[in-house]
Amino acid sequence: MSEENVREENVTVIGLGQMGAALAAAFLDAGHPTTVWNRTAAKAGPLVARGAAHAAGVAEAVAASELVVVCVLDHAAVHELLAPHAEALRGRVVVNLTTGSPEQARESARWAEGHGIGYLDGGVMTTPPGIGDSANMILYAGGPELLARHRATLAVLGDPVDLGADAGLASLYDAGLLGLMWSVFGGWLHATALTGADGVAARDFTAVATRWLKTVSWFMTGYAEQIDAGEYPGADATIDVQVAAIGHLLHAGEERGVDGRLPRLHLELMRSAVEAGHGGDSYARIIEAFRK
Amino acid sequence: MSEENVREENVTVIGLGQMGAALAAAFLDAGHPTTVWNRTAAKAGPLVARGAAHAAGVAEAVAASELVVVCVLDHAAVHELLAPHAEALRGRVVVNLTTGSPEQARESARWAEGHGIGYLDGGVMTTPPGIGDSANMILYAGGPELLARHRATLAVLGDPVDLGADAGLASLYDAGLLGLMWSVFGGWLHATALTGADGVAARDFTAVATRWLKTVSWFMTGYAEQIDAGEYPGADATIDVQVAAIGHLLHAGEERGVDGRLPRLHLELMRSAVEAGHGGDSYARIIEAFRK
Repeated sequence: MSEENVREENVTVIGLGQMGAALAAAFLDAGHPTTVWNRTAAKAGPLVARGAAHAAGVAEAVAASELVVVCVLDHAAVHELLAPHAEALRGRVVVNLTTGSPEQARESARWAEGHGIGYLDGGVMTTPPGIGDSANMILYAGGPELLARHRATLAVLGDPVDLGADAGLASLYDAGLLGLMWSVFGGWLHATALTGADGVAARDFTAVATRWLKTVSWFMTGYAEQIDAGEYPGADATIDVQVAAIGHLLHAGEERGVDGRLPRLHLELMRSAVEAGHGGDSYARIIEAFRK
Repeated sequence: MSEENVREENVTVIGLGQMGAALAAAFLDAGHPTTVWNRTAAKAGPLVARGAAHAAGVAEAVAASELVVVCVLDHAAVHELLAPHAEALRGRVVVNLTTGSPEQARESARWAEGHGIGYLDGGVMTTPPGIGDSANMILYAGGPELLARHRATLAVLGDPVDLGADAGLASLYDAGLLGLMWSVFGGWLHATALTGADGVAARDFTAVATRWLKTVSWFMTGYAEQIDAGEYPGADATIDVQVAAIGHLLHAGEERGVDGRLPRLHLELMRSAVEAGHGGDSYARIIEAFRK
């Protein structure tokens, strides 16, 4: 291996909030020469102590690396910081890990393309302490070839997942996955309250619940094929069967004084499918209730 | 190994609906001498062709095995079938895999105890085609020592999970886990509709979503400890942060004509925690909204 291959790629991290600081620390830990900048300079201190170079301004930060990771408050802040440095960014790659909407990500991608700047939009699917753990996903959209080129460097932050050429998809997946998370939390907390009413420790129920999520994942994988095919054969698990089963949950909740808003909403969704004549179909048919 | 050890334990299966038939087939496949009975005798045909003995009545079915598995329509049907045979069942073990309420399971356990009958109440956490796969859980409650004694035989159906001495807990866990499943399905279908509106195949989104559930499971495991401790430190992921993030999901859904009832309910639950002064706590605090 030649010396050039051994030396890790330079990276710049702009924005040193909790997440940005975690990103910079992961690059430093992996041996990447890392340049940092933050509007409030004091936040750079701990990173400089760990070996980071502290840029005096955005221009210096941008000049230091081909790969410029940006993690700031919002889309407006990204634009405000980078727009004055479009020429300096030409030929470099901006990796935008700032939370925003798909539309904002697509707008940033168009701006970057117009200035000859490479652009990757990202969604960080973990909290700052999870940065650096390859079990966690970082979603990237807008530049499969850019991701391929910088994959080894970005893999330092978490496992890079390529969502393809549409820069809006990292934000859209991010929003959808958080929605899934809140739904999982809701169903789990409801069930933990229910079993807790009969003396079950949250720890005991949760050990079974997390294992159950693997079975549920298996159903989802099969149902996804049905959704793409637009056909929902019920086979052994129809919506009619679920409507009958949810009665036990509602009743058990009422008996124990557990709030029933969440299961009642699920029953409402099931009933809309039954009323449309789809009670014999699989649960995947309920996607139509969301599509309106 | 002596010949007695090689011979598998006799089992009886009463009730040959889709699930009962799958249970009997799994016992037969594993080499257990299996006796079956069903109100409508014709359903026994395919199992007899695979080697099952067909009992002429419940009395004969009960007499054939120490382990008597019952999987019928409901609690009333269980009682109607078994009550006349209480004396014949003395010293045997009834494994009740019929769906019912925790209260009904506890009533059955008391009845069995009063007649010197061993009783295990079960929750089958899969559909009939999943029977026989050790990746799937079968929950057992009411008799840890009975489960230990017959574990090898019951393991033929799926992985036996012992929930302890309270016979009501298999039903209660079952209801709670199904509630969790409907919540997962709801959040996933909502997100699949959302990403689908921008052209993402359900298959592609679901591959990321099922992986994401592992990260979510990791959060649940940590939050369960908080629930048992009654303390909810927010650390890096507070309810306030989630309230801010859900705005992106609601907005993205509105832009795409995706039904927002589910995320709006989650926001309502989050807001009740914020209004109670717990916005800086972790999501686990929301269990209080379910406890009322």
